[in-house]
Amino acid sequence: MKKQFAVIGLGRFGGSICNALADEGMDVLAIDSNEYRVNEFAQVVTQAVIADGMDEKALRGLGIRNFDNVIVAIGDNIQASIMTTIVLDEIGVKHITVKAQNDYHEKVLRRIGAHEVIHPERDIGVRVAHSIVSKSVLDYLELSEDYSIVELEAGQLLDGKSLLDLDIRETYECNVLAIKRGEDVHVSPRPEVDISEGDILIIVGADGDIARLEARWIDDN
Amino acid sequence: MKKQFAVIGLGRFGGSICNALADEGMDVLAIDSNEYRVNEFAQVVTQAVIADGMDEKALRGLGIRNFDNVIVAIGDNIQASIMTTIVLDEIGVKHITVKAQNDYHEKVLRRIGAHEVIHPERDIGVRVAHSIVSKSVLDYLELSEDYSIVELEAGQLLDGKSLLDLDIRETYECNVLAIKRGEDVHVSPRPEVDISEGDILIIVGADGDIARLEARWIDDN
Ligand SMILES: Nc1ncnc2c1ncn2[C@@H]1O[C@H](COP(=O)(O)OP(=O)(O)OP(=O)(O)O)[C@@H](O)[C@H]1O
Ligand SMILES: Nc1ncnc2c1ncn2[C@@H]1O[C@H](COP(=O)(O)OP(=O)(O)OP(=O)(O)O)[C@@H](O)[C@H]1O
Ligand SMILES: [Ca+2]
Ligand SMILES: [Ca+2]
Ligand SMILES: [Ca+2]
Ligand SMILES: [Ca+2]
Repeated sequence: MKKQFAVIGLGRFGGSICNALADEGMDVLAIDSNEYRVNEFAQVVTQAVIADGMDEKALRGLGIRNFDNVIVAIGDNIQASIMTTIVLDEIGVKHITVKAQNDYHEKVLRRIGAHEVIHPERDIGVRVAHSIVSKSVLDYLELSEDYSIVELEAGQLLDGKSLLDLDIRETYECNVLAIKRGEDVHVSPRPEVDISEGDILIIVGADGDIARLEARWIDDN
Repeated sequence: MKKQFAVIGLGRFGGSICNALADEGMDVLAIDSNEYRVNEFAQVVTQAVIADGMDEKALRGLGIRNFDNVIVAIGDNIQASIMTTIVLDEIGVKHITVKAQNDYHEKVLRRIGAHEVIHPERDIGVRVAHSIVSKSVLDYLELSEDYSIVELEAGQLLDGKSLLDLDIRETYECNVLAIKRGEDVHVSPRPEVDISEGDILIIVGADGDIARLEARWIDDN
């Protein structure tokens, strides 16, 4: 059966959760006490409702007990975030995920029944820092402290070169896992395949080796 | 030469940028008008200074013109964020990165000289939604609309099985790119290698195929 999600609080964070869940084809109930926010999401999610997260009766009426995961995305009003979490715990919701503002907020949330506490503003910094340090790394996945999978965009320097020409394996001890051209993804490309400007190379290797490869073969911009 | 970064505004977002940049061994100058925030980062970054981002003289005195990238991480006070950006543009900073609260804020920032505008609260939603939908996906990299690299943790079901036993390639059309065991990463593992509970499998494939594989072989928790 399809999983059912509810999001309480439709600010930038809660709103982007709604968009992403709807995008993945999930059933989403979106709740906010502000009718303008609710109207914004009426066309995006399965159901959008004006309600106060602290109103136990209203939440029961929406059948919130049967949802697989309820995400409390109220940030600035810590009291409302805490009270909403208590109400959800009282109702017996299976999985309560709450956005916290800081460590004290998290401690309180855990005591009163939150199953999962997230710190989006804090977590995004690591990713943004990575993209700030290296402009050519489009996205990345950290495998360990010093081993990553990165997406690098081929510029003029790589245009018309094959993986053999680059000798990535021997010289840089990196592996090209895939080449992305538009929406096409070629997994485990053969070494004689030619790279074109604009191709995205998905590369795995040690951070230092990737940095060397990048410094030599990826155009600055 | 080592790149030099400055971060103005040491809230959760700016603070996490400082931590991550320092972690990568970068030179970081951290600035906030609030002395408590500055003290918090004194031990983390190269230099932490109490100053107002709108104070052109103070910024010039810090030699901000010579930094490779100045990140304005003032969020709630939109006016201060805008004024700080103008001052940096006036000084002639090479690359100004600014955190925006919304689209209007972004428009203004671009007009007055911001080179890069980021919306961290909005961007993190997509990633969090992904981890909320699938509890066993630890992290992921979206290669295209329906093709991803994911990290899955092996549970009891996979303990002692080899990649051959799973027949991942034939049945699920997925590829195991690497197996992570603690801090060790084995790239392109041979099919006869045995998986242990707790291993992290790095898998590439179509989203639907990954979901099937996950439903069959990854323990719920
Ligand atoms: N008691 C409540 N019940 C329902 N919704 C609420 C309640 N209190 C606040 N909200 C809603 O939660 C949303 C997010 O609140 P917050 O104060 O964190 O706003 P924000 O800073 O714009 O959000 P974000 O930090 O995600 O950008 C707002 O749309 C607000 O109307
Ligand atoms: N004019 C200014 N000059 C320097 N620092 C400033 C200025 N105005 C605000 N700040 C600092 O910017 C930091 C971030 O401000 P913001 O109001 O966005 O706080 P926050 O909501 O805690 O941050 P975040 O959203 O990143 O968690 C604060 O530490 C604040 O003291
Ligand atoms: Ca907020
Ligand atoms: Ca690292
Ligand atoms: Ca803020
Ligand atoms: Ca997708």
